[in-house]
Amino acid sequence: MTALAGIIMGSMSDWETMRFAAETLERLEIPHEVEVISAHRTPDKLFQYAEAAEAKGLEVIIAGAGGAAHLPGMMAAKTAIPVLGVPIQSKALNGMDSLLSIVQMPAGIPVGTLAIGKAGAINAALLAAAIISNKHGQYGDALQNFRREQTETVLAHSDPREENL
Amino acid sequence: MTALAGIIMGSMSDWETMRFAAETLERLEIPHEVEVISAHRTPDKLFQYAEAAEAKGLEVIIAGAGGAAHLPGMMAAKTAIPVLGVPIQSKALNGMDSLLSIVQMPAGIPVGTLAIGKAGAINAALLAAAIISNKHGQYGDALQNFRREQTETVLAHSDPREENL
Amino acid sequence: MTALAGIIMGSMSDWETMRFAAETLERLEIPHEVEVISAHRTPDKLFQYAEAAEAKGLEVIIAGAGGAAHLPGMMAAKTAIPVLGVPIQSKALNGMDSLLSIVQMPAGIPVGTLAIGKAGAINAALLAAAIISNKHGQYGDALQNFRREQTETVLAHSDPREENL
Amino acid sequence: MTALAGIIMGSMSDWETMRFAAETLERLEIPHEVEVISAHRTPDKLFQYAEAAEAKGLEVIIAGAGGAAHLPGMMAAKTAIPVLGVPIQSKALNGMDSLLSIVQMPAGIPVGTLAIGKAGAINAALLAAAIISNKHGQYGDALQNFRREQTETVLAHSDPREENL
Amino acid sequence: MTALAGIIMGSMSDWETMRFAAETLERLEIPHEVEVISAHRTPDKLFQYAEAAEAKGLEVIIAGAGGAAHLPGMMAAKTAIPVLGVPIQSKALNGMDSLLSIVQMPAGIPVGTLAIGKAGAINAALLAAAIISNKHGQYGDALQNFRREQTETVLAHSDPREENL
Amino acid sequence: MTALAGIIMGSMSDWETMRFAAETLERLEIPHEVEVISAHRTPDKLFQYAEAAEAKGLEVIIAGAGGAAHLPGMMAAKTAIPVLGVPIQSKALNGMDSLLSIVQMPAGIPVGTLAIGKAGAINAALLAAAIISNKHGQYGDALQNFRREQTETVLAHSDPREENL
Amino acid sequence: MTALAGIIMGSMSDWETMRFAAETLERLEIPHEVEVISAHRTPDKLFQYAEAAEAKGLEVIIAGAGGAAHLPGMMAAKTAIPVLGVPIQSKALNGMDSLLSIVQMPAGIPVGTLAIGKAGAINAALLAAAIISNKHGQYGDALQNFRREQTETVLAHSDPREENL
Amino acid sequence: MTALAGIIMGSMSDWETMRFAAETLERLEIPHEVEVISAHRTPDKLFQYAEAAEAKGLEVIIAGAGGAAHLPGMMAAKTAIPVLGVPIQSKALNGMDSLLSIVQMPAGIPVGTLAIGKAGAINAALLAAAIISNKHGQYGDALQNFRREQTETVLAHSDPREENL
Repeated sequence: MTALAGIIMGSMSDWETMRFAAETLERLEIPHEVEVISAHRTPDKLFQYAEAAEAKGLEVIIAGAGGAAHLPGMMAAKTAIPVLGVPIQSKALNGMDSLLSIVQMPAGIPVGTLAIGKAGAINAALLAAAIISNKHGQYGDALQNFRREQTETVLAHSDPREENL
Repeated sequence: MTALAGIIMGSMSDWETMRFAAETLERLEIPHEVEVISAHRTPDKLFQYAEAAEAKGLEVIIAGAGGAAHLPGMMAAKTAIPVLGVPIQSKALNGMDSLLSIVQMPAGIPVGTLAIGKAGAINAALLAAAIISNKHGQYGDALQNFRREQTETVLAHSDPREENL
Repeated sequence: MTALAGIIMGSMSDWETMRFAAETLERLEIPHEVEVISAHRTPDKLFQYAEAAEAKGLEVIIAGAGGAAHLPGMMAAKTAIPVLGVPIQSKALNGMDSLLSIVQMPAGIPVGTLAIGKAGAINAALLAAAIISNKHGQYGDALQNFRREQTETVLAHSDPREENL
Repeated sequence: MTALAGIIMGSMSDWETMRFAAETLERLEIPHEVEVISAHRTPDKLFQYAEAAEAKGLEVIIAGAGGAAHLPGMMAAKTAIPVLGVPIQSKALNGMDSLLSIVQMPAGIPVGTLAIGKAGAINAALLAAAIISNKHGQYGDALQNFRREQTETVLAHSDPREENL
Repeated sequence: MTALAGIIMGSMSDWETMRFAAETLERLEIPHEVEVISAHRTPDKLFQYAEAAEAKGLEVIIAGAGGAAHLPGMMAAKTAIPVLGVPIQSKALNGMDSLLSIVQMPAGIPVGTLAIGKAGAINAALLAAAIISNKHGQYGDALQNFRREQTETVLAHSDPREENL
Repeated sequence: MTALAGIIMGSMSDWETMRFAAETLERLEIPHEVEVISAHRTPDKLFQYAEAAEAKGLEVIIAGAGGAAHLPGMMAAKTAIPVLGVPIQSKALNGMDSLLSIVQMPAGIPVGTLAIGKAGAINAALLAAAIISNKHGQYGDALQNFRREQTETVLAHSDPREENL
Repeated sequence: MTALAGIIMGSMSDWETMRFAAETLERLEIPHEVEVISAHRTPDKLFQYAEAAEAKGLEVIIAGAGGAAHLPGMMAAKTAIPVLGVPIQSKALNGMDSLLSIVQMPAGIPVGTLAIGKAGAINAALLAAAIISNKHGQYGDALQNFRREQTETVLAHSDPREENL
Repeated sequence: MTALAGIIMGSMSDWETMRFAAETLERLEIPHEVEVISAHRTPDKLFQYAEAAEAKGLEVIIAGAGGAAHLPGMMAAKTAIPVLGVPIQSKALNGMDSLLSIVQMPAGIPVGTLAIGKAGAINAALLAAAIISNKHGQYGDALQNFRREQTETVLAHSDPREENL
């Protein structure tokens, strides 16, 4: 089945975070692909991926990167497909460098940026799902279910004194 | 014409920034509406807006707020429509508070966050346009033109020594 | 006995921090209730809680939340009862995001903010006790005792070289 | 009429910010007093003020200070009356030093901290009003009116394109 | 022997850091005393200590504190004896709050601030020794020896490839 | 004369800063070229410039950019010629975003980063001159003169009380 | 009269801040000297100054510098005389870079660091006066007077509503 | 064989980071030397090293230091040879102090700064190799191979789901 979302990341070690984006898309049954592309070590592949993205049917690209994180912004520079950026938590600066490198894009080339780390990866998938289901209504139900279930889970466990933490 | 994008902001003074989102959508001829909604001073209106958004045809909501900026995140809590957040530059902390209040959402409720200030407002509109034109192909050309023109403008002025700054 | 203070928190995991608020209120014998309410995943419950708070006798609300922490501010938006905010220490940014999301409220809707983490939870309970005992004098003695005892504890252990750390 | 709230500040120049706390209390018709007390240059006066506060009828103390801001915390160390801290925007570090010096109190001695600058001063007064009206119901109506009016003001000006900014 | 330096700290747990100040003074054979004084939980003791300091012969006070660290600044407010501040590394903010609370003193009341944590504790002792030996020449030799030895230690181990780390 | 150094920048407005790099190279009589290249708006030109750089004789590239500054890092990704990065002072975050986006490069692709703003632009030129004169000895004298003169200037004006500031 | 304190600074432009140190020493009638010494542009002069300092009678050195501020730390590396550091407010980072470059000295070489900017310059002079008067009692009275007068000034102007700001 | 690059560091413990610079130069077969030089504890050795560097054939100096990191800047102050700075990750502030102390050099004395920690050490070696191979072409091939191999490694492992992490 044709991938509608592409999940890319700057290095193999980013998978520890980005797999939460993949798992979320899987749960929503949205077809997607996963690829390691380093803006700095494989810049030509980055350009090739961007140039081919629209033709092969991608409707959203989720890009995770850490430190001087250039992958989301450069992907957005090369394609008009919505790019969502996930700042990976970096070792020294805890992802503040990743966050600023991704979110502070100049006017003209947007990257929709999510939270640092795992929460950002999950949310990138959810935002991608919302974007995709705007066109492909069939995914909207899964997204609504996901949201309803997480609400019910919180409602069902409202007294922390009764829980085994 | 039915608005496809809603631009909301926490206070009247945010319009100084958010009008760049409106101007960009106008340039792209994407129908939109503009509204001041304060998460803190008009919380009920926030909920009403969110609950009515999908039915009235909104496909993206752009929310700008400053300081302890809760408008984008609360809007996203109440609707599955994609929400894009614009951190307004705040007086004391230059928008770092706005940025963190918007981007650091917990897993489950995404806000696609753009840069602090004017660039973020323009980019929120461009990202909204990309999301909308995924479904409504007719807006895709305007977006492509916008991007092509800005590229040509940079290419046409490549030697700063020849320009009158 | 009717709860005078409500302790709410954004997720079950915040209980690790917020239980220190509960334990402090217990020590002061101030009746209170505890509830998990997520601003983002259960926004309607947040509103319902706020709308019912005054009628059921709450005189202070202590709200703990982390990351893009919207729970204290939104609670304060919906009720005039004093709201005290406890920034939970977040994973990537150590609670700086939580702190700024809670303390930097715009003019009109106050949240009395305490320190990040455990100390903040304890102090929220102590400040709640001071607020409540302004009206209900009977709790004032317990608060004075608490303060006297902690002073005496410090005074009794003034030479660190004699202590087994 | 006996002052129920005391507004104190570390230096004369802080009045530029703290006068918004005084103006807000005036609007709510809550009796209050105003005093410059420097924790560093008049420490004995700080102690005397704290020791006399309860006897003379103060129910809340609002303390504004900047830089290494010790006034709110030391006041809270000397009295069990609720102390609300307002971080003054400092020259070099924009009030981040003031904020951290006030909010990061150790367990045992709380300071309810508001936003940096003018918004924090207004909100300190509003939170003081909420605390005071818990006991003195007559001030509750003024507070409810204040909140209702600010909500109506935002609702009445919801389209920024129609306003003269 | 009369103590020339006083080492004080805000809580028992600060001894883990401040014992390096004591050990350094011991190595230099400078008579000193050690005391836990909490600015917030034992404010009266703080004032008593400051008022007695000069008469009992203290020539320097080293004060360590963490978080909203008020001990060094309040000690300096109450005595003209040189006060040296050591920011204790705090849990959430790594000592940035401690540092700013100590170093950003307003004009008129100085605190000579050292580095966050252990290095700062050692250096506070060395700076105290330099101050004391300005008057009491006999301690100057020990200080010169300390400095010479540490220089020789670095010079003797200049090739890291030959060391067992 | 063939340019040995290339000065590139992300937008025309960066020239206000980067012209100090050009002026410094002029003073040292090192042949150079100047070009506006936006990583985000003209990514293809960035690649073309990088691919042609070595063949046309460039030995150092100085790249200035602000915000989510990707120009220096992407240039370094595409060429093994030394790349020096100048963080432009940005509006909201004062260049902290620019600095982290440039300096925090992952292992494998280096960017030698200079200070934020004008000082960084001057120093990039001086470091470029040092790199170039390692091979082309004739430029070494100019660099030595530059350094000697700036030393003499400081030495000649050592008493600020005698200067008209 | 022999200078007991040396005021040095990294560049002529730092005099705008450091003159407040000089004025304060003048007011206290403590003999001092003033000199511009750049750690980076006149490193040899820095060493010569340090090596001569003790012999010519200096008992304290006050060193102001901005940005990557190395002057105080290098002076302390070369002399055991107490060195007090004043972080100059820098253009881009507001003196946070200056502060960290000065205060975060490694164990073994202390710099007593004061606040960023004018307050730090005044306080460096006051701390120098306290150090010097430990040995030279005659300056102690001036210091006590300075402190008493500033206390009286604050006490005399305690109601900001009566002042013309 | 004569060392072309010197790797220096402020303390023995920095070798844990700086050995990655040495290993990278070894892999590229660039002759180099390694030395511990503390700007603060062995300032004279720092000057001697700088004064001898050019004569003994060094063409680049890589300097690693942490906290108030003065080694790179002072080395650059004493020699016109290119100096590359590596900020060591510090305990309390995670290397932000090291980074600012190294990168924020004033105009006139450049330090080409790399990333905090291990990545910075590797990249300093790679940038040194690029500088050296500009003159000594024989090292250029090794550098090109290094870059090609790291690109091929990333390309060969592009699907994280197939890897054992």
